[in-house]
Amino acid sequence: MKILVLNGPNLNLLGTREPEIYGTETLADIETSMKKIAPDVEITFLQTNSEAELITLIGETPGSSDGIVINPAALTHTSLGVADALKAVAHQVPAIEVHLSNTHQREKIRHTSLSASACIGQIMGFRGFGYTLALRALLNHLDQNRSI
Amino acid sequence: MKILVLNGPNLNLLGTREPEIYGTETLADIETSMKKIAPDVEITFLQTNSEAELITLIGETPGSSDGIVINPAALTHTSLGVADALKAVAHQVPAIEVHLSNTHQREKIRHTSLSASACIGQIMGFRGFGYTLALRALLNHLDQNRSI
Amino acid sequence: MKILVLNGPNLNLLGTREPEIYGTETLADIETSMKKIAPDVEITFLQTNSEAELITLIGETPGSSDGIVINPAALTHTSLGVADALKAVAHQVPAIEVHLSNTHQREKIRHTSLSASACIGQIMGFRGFGYTLALRALLNHLDQNRSI
Amino acid sequence: MKILVLNGPNLNLLGTREPEIYGTETLADIETSMKKIAPDVEITFLQTNSEAELITLIGETPGSSDGIVINPAALTHTSLGVADALKAVAHQVPAIEVHLSNTHQREKIRHTSLSASACIGQIMGFRGFGYTLALRALLNHLDQNRSI
Amino acid sequence: MKILVLNGPNLNLLGTREPEIYGTETLADIETSMKKIAPDVEITFLQTNSEAELITLIGETPGSSDGIVINPAALTHTSLGVADALKAVAHQVPAIEVHLSNTHQREKIRHTSLSASACIGQIMGFRGFGYTLALRALLNHLDQNRSI
Amino acid sequence: MKILVLNGPNLNLLGTREPEIYGTETLADIETSMKKIAPDVEITFLQTNSEAELITLIGETPGSSDGIVINPAALTHTSLGVADALKAVAHQVPAIEVHLSNTHQREKIRHTSLSASACIGQIMGFRGFGYTLALRALLNHLDQNRSI
Amino acid sequence: MKILVLNGPNLNLLGTREPEIYGTETLADIETSMKKIAPDVEITFLQTNSEAELITLIGETPGSSDGIVINPAALTHTSLGVADALKAVAHQVPAIEVHLSNTHQREKIRHTSLSASACIGQIMGFRGFGYTLALRALLNHLDQNRSI
Amino acid sequence: MKILVLNGPNLNLLGTREPEIYGTETLADIETSMKKIAPDVEITFLQTNSEAELITLIGETPGSSDGIVINPAALTHTSLGVADALKAVAHQVPAIEVHLSNTHQREKIRHTSLSASACIGQIMGFRGFGYTLALRALLNHLDQNRSI
Amino acid sequence: MKILVLNGPNLNLLGTREPEIYGTETLADIETSMKKIAPDVEITFLQTNSEAELITLIGETPGSSDGIVINPAALTHTSLGVADALKAVAHQVPAIEVHLSNTHQREKIRHTSLSASACIGQIMGFRGFGYTLALRALLNHLDQNRSI
Amino acid sequence: MKILVLNGPNLNLLGTREPEIYGTETLADIETSMKKIAPDVEITFLQTNSEAELITLIGETPGSSDGIVINPAALTHTSLGVADALKAVAHQVPAIEVHLSNTHQREKIRHTSLSASACIGQIMGFRGFGYTLALRALLNHLDQNRSI
Amino acid sequence: MKILVLNGPNLNLLGTREPEIYGTETLADIETSMKKIAPDVEITFLQTNSEAELITLIGETPGSSDGIVINPAALTHTSLGVADALKAVAHQVPAIEVHLSNTHQREKIRHTSLSASACIGQIMGFRGFGYTLALRALLNHLDQNRSI
Amino acid sequence: MKILVLNGPNLNLLGTREPEIYGTETLADIETSMKKIAPDVEITFLQTNSEAELITLIGETPGSSDGIVINPAALTHTSLGVADALKAVAHQVPAIEVHLSNTHQREKIRHTSLSASACIGQIMGFRGFGYTLALRALLNHLDQNRSI
Repeated sequence: MKILVLNGPNLNLLGTREPEIYGTETLADIETSMKKIAPDVEITFLQTNSEAELITLIGETPGSSDGIVINPAALTHTSLGVADALKAVAHQVPAIEVHLSNTHQREKIRHTSLSASACIGQIMGFRGFGYTLALRALLNHLDQNRSI
Repeated sequence: MKILVLNGPNLNLLGTREPEIYGTETLADIETSMKKIAPDVEITFLQTNSEAELITLIGETPGSSDGIVINPAALTHTSLGVADALKAVAHQVPAIEVHLSNTHQREKIRHTSLSASACIGQIMGFRGFGYTLALRALLNHLDQNRSI
Repeated sequence: MKILVLNGPNLNLLGTREPEIYGTETLADIETSMKKIAPDVEITFLQTNSEAELITLIGETPGSSDGIVINPAALTHTSLGVADALKAVAHQVPAIEVHLSNTHQREKIRHTSLSASACIGQIMGFRGFGYTLALRALLNHLDQNRSI
Repeated sequence: MKILVLNGPNLNLLGTREPEIYGTETLADIETSMKKIAPDVEITFLQTNSEAELITLIGETPGSSDGIVINPAALTHTSLGVADALKAVAHQVPAIEVHLSNTHQREKIRHTSLSASACIGQIMGFRGFGYTLALRALLNHLDQNRSI
Repeated sequence: MKILVLNGPNLNLLGTREPEIYGTETLADIETSMKKIAPDVEITFLQTNSEAELITLIGETPGSSDGIVINPAALTHTSLGVADALKAVAHQVPAIEVHLSNTHQREKIRHTSLSASACIGQIMGFRGFGYTLALRALLNHLDQNRSI
Repeated sequence: MKILVLNGPNLNLLGTREPEIYGTETLADIETSMKKIAPDVEITFLQTNSEAELITLIGETPGSSDGIVINPAALTHTSLGVADALKAVAHQVPAIEVHLSNTHQREKIRHTSLSASACIGQIMGFRGFGYTLALRALLNHLDQNRSI
Repeated sequence: MKILVLNGPNLNLLGTREPEIYGTETLADIETSMKKIAPDVEITFLQTNSEAELITLIGETPGSSDGIVINPAALTHTSLGVADALKAVAHQVPAIEVHLSNTHQREKIRHTSLSASACIGQIMGFRGFGYTLALRALLNHLDQNRSI
Repeated sequence: MKILVLNGPNLNLLGTREPEIYGTETLADIETSMKKIAPDVEITFLQTNSEAELITLIGETPGSSDGIVINPAALTHTSLGVADALKAVAHQVPAIEVHLSNTHQREKIRHTSLSASACIGQIMGFRGFGYTLALRALLNHLDQNRSI
Repeated sequence: MKILVLNGPNLNLLGTREPEIYGTETLADIETSMKKIAPDVEITFLQTNSEAELITLIGETPGSSDGIVINPAALTHTSLGVADALKAVAHQVPAIEVHLSNTHQREKIRHTSLSASACIGQIMGFRGFGYTLALRALLNHLDQNRSI
Repeated sequence: MKILVLNGPNLNLLGTREPEIYGTETLADIETSMKKIAPDVEITFLQTNSEAELITLIGETPGSSDGIVINPAALTHTSLGVADALKAVAHQVPAIEVHLSNTHQREKIRHTSLSASACIGQIMGFRGFGYTLALRALLNHLDQNRSI
Repeated sequence: MKILVLNGPNLNLLGTREPEIYGTETLADIETSMKKIAPDVEITFLQTNSEAELITLIGETPGSSDGIVINPAALTHTSLGVADALKAVAHQVPAIEVHLSNTHQREKIRHTSLSASACIGQIMGFRGFGYTLALRALLNHLDQNRSI
Repeated sequence: MKILVLNGPNLNLLGTREPEIYGTETLADIETSMKKIAPDVEITFLQTNSEAELITLIGETPGSSDGIVINPAALTHTSLGVADALKAVAHQVPAIEVHLSNTHQREKIRHTSLSASACIGQIMGFRGFGYTLALRALLNHLDQNRSI
């Protein structure tokens, strides 16, 4: 079982700067947590600020990944291209959208998502812990569909 | 640890009717799944079609529950009263909103939520499995805050 | 043949108060008219101010009613829960929405209906007489579908 | 008693083409059904693709017709001229709007009606049967007002 | 000097019906008033319920008319075709839009005009008298431009 | 003179919980204040989380109450049914809407009111003191109309 | 017969500056033209950049003026106060709104008018000549109403 | 204790004109009523049609007034400047907005208020009596804050 | 192979008037160009200012035409009736929408199309040459589907 | 070289009140800073709460001023009259809009500007320092255009 | 003659995956078709998922390409940068926008185009065949402009 | 003191192409001007068409730059990612947004800015000179904060 975890723009800054404000959890910590709850799963954990790179990585998943956990960050609300990529592979490689914060508590532009409708589901508001929930949901989904 | 699980309008119909269409999972099945993953937690699992009853139950949680998992169903999008109740108790009894379906794939009126901003976070699209994720997220949240 | 006739909020006030303004036709008169044109049909005629009760009654129709005539009154425009209930039973128990007044001649909020799309059709503007038209339409619909 | 039945654009195609899709009921069938339930009423049944012709026919009704049953089809949503014509004669020749389909189940542009507010009421979703309901409603309306 | 006066849908009903409500002034009266104040001008005064006929008549004005006074009635707000026709001939045959009523005191759909921007100007609210004002404005405009 | 004071959803929580945040004034305190300034008036003071109960209580006022002071809370902005009930009795039992907070300082959904237009007037922003102002306004209104 | 002609903000600049662009017609020229076509009418012709002064002048018309010709200029689109003043005196002192340009050919904010619905009618697009048309319309209106 | 009462555009016309329509209560009557209920308070009662004068008067209150009762009339809905002035002095000189009519029963533009959010609260619909309520609310507010 | 080419309102004016502005290409030139590139295809080339005639002609295509090239001109943006006609025959007679100009460079009302979604595709901006492209696209489409 | 600096409503309050909140910089300080960086320029520095006065002052600039620095304050977002005045003189007397705060960080109504499009450019967010930047930009603009 | 053909995000996936769903035509097939109909034209055919790369390639066309055929895919609806690039070179290197599908039949966000107004024209709905049409249109455009 | 100057999409084309239209000022000229007015400041001046590169560069500023001058060009209006990056570093590295043109004079999409609220302030409309103003504003801001 291979899972691709994708992180969008600005998430590289997570936890390493101003820890008194944003907390000290980093993307590396999240990667570690995910691998701990699913030691048998091969997890590829990537971050990029580039919409193009996200699209390319998603487009390459069929054949190389079984599922995607994606936090498109700001691109959630502005990139139709990421949404199109997720839709293009949806029947082969299901995806789950995750957000660190509860976007309903932020500005209006963050209340809607272009990419969410191309995913199985969405999890938001639980900071890094949400990634492990997304992984559980993805494995459960793949497990149910495989048995069919 | 006591958790209140609240289910809104029409969810009583889940799984018991037209199983070939909506699946056979019932609210009782979901209740069982939740209790299985957290045997030490006292879970009260309720369903009501009444906005007033939801509001009353939420208002009574301080002192009797440690957290709430709520699927307000249709009231997610139309009840400011449920949202107000969740906000009123938020500092004492944190809540998590859960939806069986991915509402972003449905009609426009279901793309926004009045109650989500009064919760810690939101989980949608994983059918009954989402309730167990919500429970994990709630327990994790309560655990982190207790240690502080 | 069993038909459930449901009347929403404030319709209990119909005809019994200020008859010089609103006319003297009461819900009881409408019930009588309906029973007169379909003496062989078992008509259950109810009124409630409660959204929850409407939802519960609709949810209980499969197995106990063959069709629904519903005037959701103010809930037509604000209750996604009533609409969801009608959709949940639509394949088993068809419904027809009826309004006493022509809502297109009233305030803008009454020009659209959340519940109408969950019904076979809609009849408005004929006061109590509209209920008998709805009954005829429902019986005709049930008759055509039974023959198939 | 003379009733004018008006059918707008594209309704000439009804039933004669692709019957496996749209059903085999034609405008002629509807005309026959209407005459059957009201044999004493003189029914003039017309179809035109022209907004101008509809407006002219409506404007000529005072003195020659007692009431109008109209299915403006696509013009329901785009013709202020048909609506104006109905309003101009409303005090002398009442009209009822009828639609074959439940327009609330179709595209958003069909959820509102320019002409409905110029009519006594509206009936939609019962295919050809709706025309006979409209006729009953119109005769009932004329009957009640005549007695005054 | 030749002026074409065009009247749109339903204006044929003006004054001849329910005079106690709409007044007794007819299109013929308006035509007489216009000819009285400009006896040397050749005025062609037409009414049609047809958008197509209006478009055709406007398109034929270059070479046969020096200016247009037009009351597009309901088509003011819905016909881009009439607006396009007026724009197509605007450099050769200037037009003035006139309305019997003050449309700002009516429904919202009548507060904007598709055709007004294709005309020199607009006059509204003075009933039949507005046509003579429009004629004066048109003759003044033609007079000023001729001298250049 | 009999006055019915109605309080909507979540107002039961007022003052008894987190007094350091919301103040210590309770509904009981407000009831006491109202009775103190109008000792001769029979004040019935109720709270309910139920839209249906509010509608039923309002519908029953003619004959039993002379006026209504109502704080519909969240239902102010979402319940057309409460607004309809107030309109139905408005000519017999005038009502005044009161809000504890200045809703213009809160979220956008609270800037408009469905029920206010069915009342004589609206008072907001003065916490419990606003109820006594509403009572004064109601008594003044009833007094002026009685003298007519 | 006394007529008050009011000109709003920036109209003092008309014609005196950059005549090669805006033409050489000044407010004084317009005043002269108006007086020429109605030598028996006492015309008071004023300009002010002040909304307050316009409101005050309109409020003082009952008893001192028989009618108003007003070009509110930019205040047409932003001043509810001028509109309220015109409405307050409308039954005693009718007003006509005039604009030099065809506002439908300008920016969107100029396509609607707050004050027009408080006037008998509106004339736009004929530059200074429009004022004489407005005067004719006003005199005709006063003449017709006086005879009644 | 010094209170400044400010009245905006067109309120000078109150009661002195067409008393059969608007009633005979004048601003002077309202001033008298206010002084009667608070004889110990120094009330300065002003009216102006000028937005600038309102802004200047509000800006001068710190040091000379303890509180403001303001009816901005039409400026309620169009003047950000009055709102800014009220906000600038809010921490020193609290204000209460009052309206004679229930603006929710009037045109849509009057359903929202730019200035209300800069005030403690808002009272509307009680005609002149509302000013005395506003005075009571203001004195109560000042009294409560003084004791702190 | 028979192709119907339909041209909507005002297109009759093309090229014959003010050639220095709009160019000298006429509808006849376009017809000639189309016939030149497809000499074996029977092309019927029509123009009408009438929405009704367009609807009738489209409705008659099944059995008499294999495909449609249509430039609905202004009706593109306002006629739901033309769109309905195209949809009614779409499964039998595919259509392609063509525009002489690039409507995205014109007013906002021309940026959307009611009829385009009822066609296979849309071509705009290439003046008369666009018609020959549409013909090629239509023949290619018919050719591909015939082989299936 | 003569420059007119105009300050709109409420700016007179700047710096003299609640210095611990808004800072101690006054308009006089800003005037001094501007004069210091351009000692050879004749700077007239004015403040008014009146829209009318701003309009009049702007209209008088041709011939007496070479350029304008304007902070319209609240009128930025509500006064079409100030915008019109700036446009009227733009070809003779260029203007620059300046704001003390970054209006994009404030309420939505402050995110757009009616007057900015009538100016060369806009500077916001630098408190009093922004005025000196505006002066530099204006002098640079005048210098470049003079050399042409 | 040199033509640059640009393909945006996700178009690399065309035809190579799930051919039973999306067809088997690839970008390479489209490139071949284009070169076949214009063997004398030097066609550079590129695909990229990167908005930046598209912008850079467009910016480099002057001097190296005579025209552009571009399918911006998802960027059509979200990239103002691609639109700006096309506008920057439009006078030197004309472009044509092409879409494989008829975007009017898809979600609302795809009904408008940011880039289309920067192109000569737009072709949509003909799958790969549309590219050859775009090439013909571009060559025809270049041919006509060259002869001038 | 180190300042990073960032230029977004298409700005590389500035001044080098069609100088008769866009002027001859290049980015290199702007860089030179900035360095001339602040010879002691270390200015890094970059241009990129890539949103990702802008985000990365902004994210790397803490520790390496003291402030940012940024012209996001088209990304101003479409990139939430650039705005998020600026917000993430705002407390450490303040930024100023600059635009060459006055975006209020261009299309509506350019009237709002996603990134401006993440900056100290905004300067627009002064072409290259605006960059030197931004630099002055930034140095002044850094100077004032350093002294604290």
